[in-house]
Amino acid sequence: MALALDPAAQDLLFREAHTANTFTDEPVAEEQLQAIYDLVKYGPTAFNQSPLRLTLLRSPEARERLLTHMAEGNVPKTRTAPLTAVLSYDLDFHERLPELFPRAPHIKDAVFSEESSRETAGALNATLQAGYFLLGVRAAGLAAGPMTGFDAQGINKEFFADGRRRVLLVVNIGKPGPDAFAPRSPRLPYGDVVTVL
Amino acid sequence: MALALDPAAQDLLFREAHTANTFTDEPVAEEQLQAIYDLVKYGPTAFNQSPLRLTLLRSPEARERLLTHMAEGNVPKTRTAPLTAVLSYDLDFHERLPELFPRAPHIKDAVFSEESSRETAGALNATLQAGYFLLGVRAAGLAAGPMTGFDAQGINKEFFADGRRRVLLVVNIGKPGPDAFAPRSPRLPYGDVVTVL
Repeated sequence: MALALDPAAQDLLFREAHTANTFTDEPVAEEQLQAIYDLVKYGPTAFNQSPLRLTLLRSPEARERLLTHMAEGNVPKTRTAPLTAVLSYDLDFHERLPELFPRAPHIKDAVFSEESSRETAGALNATLQAGYFLLGVRAAGLAAGPMTGFDAQGINKEFFADGRRRVLLVVNIGKPGPDAFAPRSPRLPYGDVVTVL
Repeated sequence: MALALDPAAQDLLFREAHTANTFTDEPVAEEQLQAIYDLVKYGPTAFNQSPLRLTLLRSPEARERLLTHMAEGNVPKTRTAPLTAVLSYDLDFHERLPELFPRAPHIKDAVFSEESSRETAGALNATLQAGYFLLGVRAAGLAAGPMTGFDAQGINKEFFADGRRRVLLVVNIGKPGPDAFAPRSPRLPYGDVVTVL
């Protein structure tokens, strides 16, 4: 059955897109990140809470601070990527809720006064946003290299010294370099993923 | 700056798309779900672990079992949506890793022998996949109504009695009905979300 999304867009975002493990040194402009954000910011979150935050590492000094916390296998590609983004969520995202969800501003206190409820909701909703962001990077014609191999506590201390953010994902971004892609791994068949009741 | 993704696709997935709160009774065919899955299954996960599982509630009996665990405000729209999907992750996703990540089959035991490591990775990666799935529903020309307002332990006991899955999100799916959309809420400006180092 045909999808409403045109096949070229399907290919760009999903079918022909691959996680990149090498990058050219072509820079990623700030304007490209803005265009990506201005697209993916519309993806849904609960109560429009929008807890995702992006830390873009552009200076060599900032990059070096990150590398000490990355798993060994992720260091070389993270050192050479033209841009690396640290994706985190804001533990105090609720402070912006009266502005973000004007039709029910009481949600800020009624649902999110406890930090534990913000941890659960912030992690879930910012991770949904991270999924939108990865597709947004591809929508810009760039390749993404998302990574979870890092010392999360180390990154949190290094970059979020006030303790108010929690890292979720680190993403290298750029144009794919030589031998950037591993062979496509198989996916689970529909019948193994879906149960119909 | 222009994105590589064509503007009609940007609109379909992000700019013109809204969370739906009412639906027509036009059914959502199994073939549509298969087409969505066959697109979004290519979205990246760590080690291609692909932990997301979908439980599609089609029978009135299955729908009633869900409704008792939904927050009151989510009951009417969930009762009348043509299809409701329960998105969960498989706590034993690692059993499929030798097949899903053939270039490093030892990852199954080297990284994921402890259930606690599968909880962390499964929740994160399945939530990324949930983000891809929500955009996939829109790619099919359908509206999604994602919800987190439910009793997670209740749903886990009701639908995953063996204790091997954890619900993340419940999503109503269909064609939008009358007054389906709330007004677009504001989004955070780029400068409030992004830090450049």
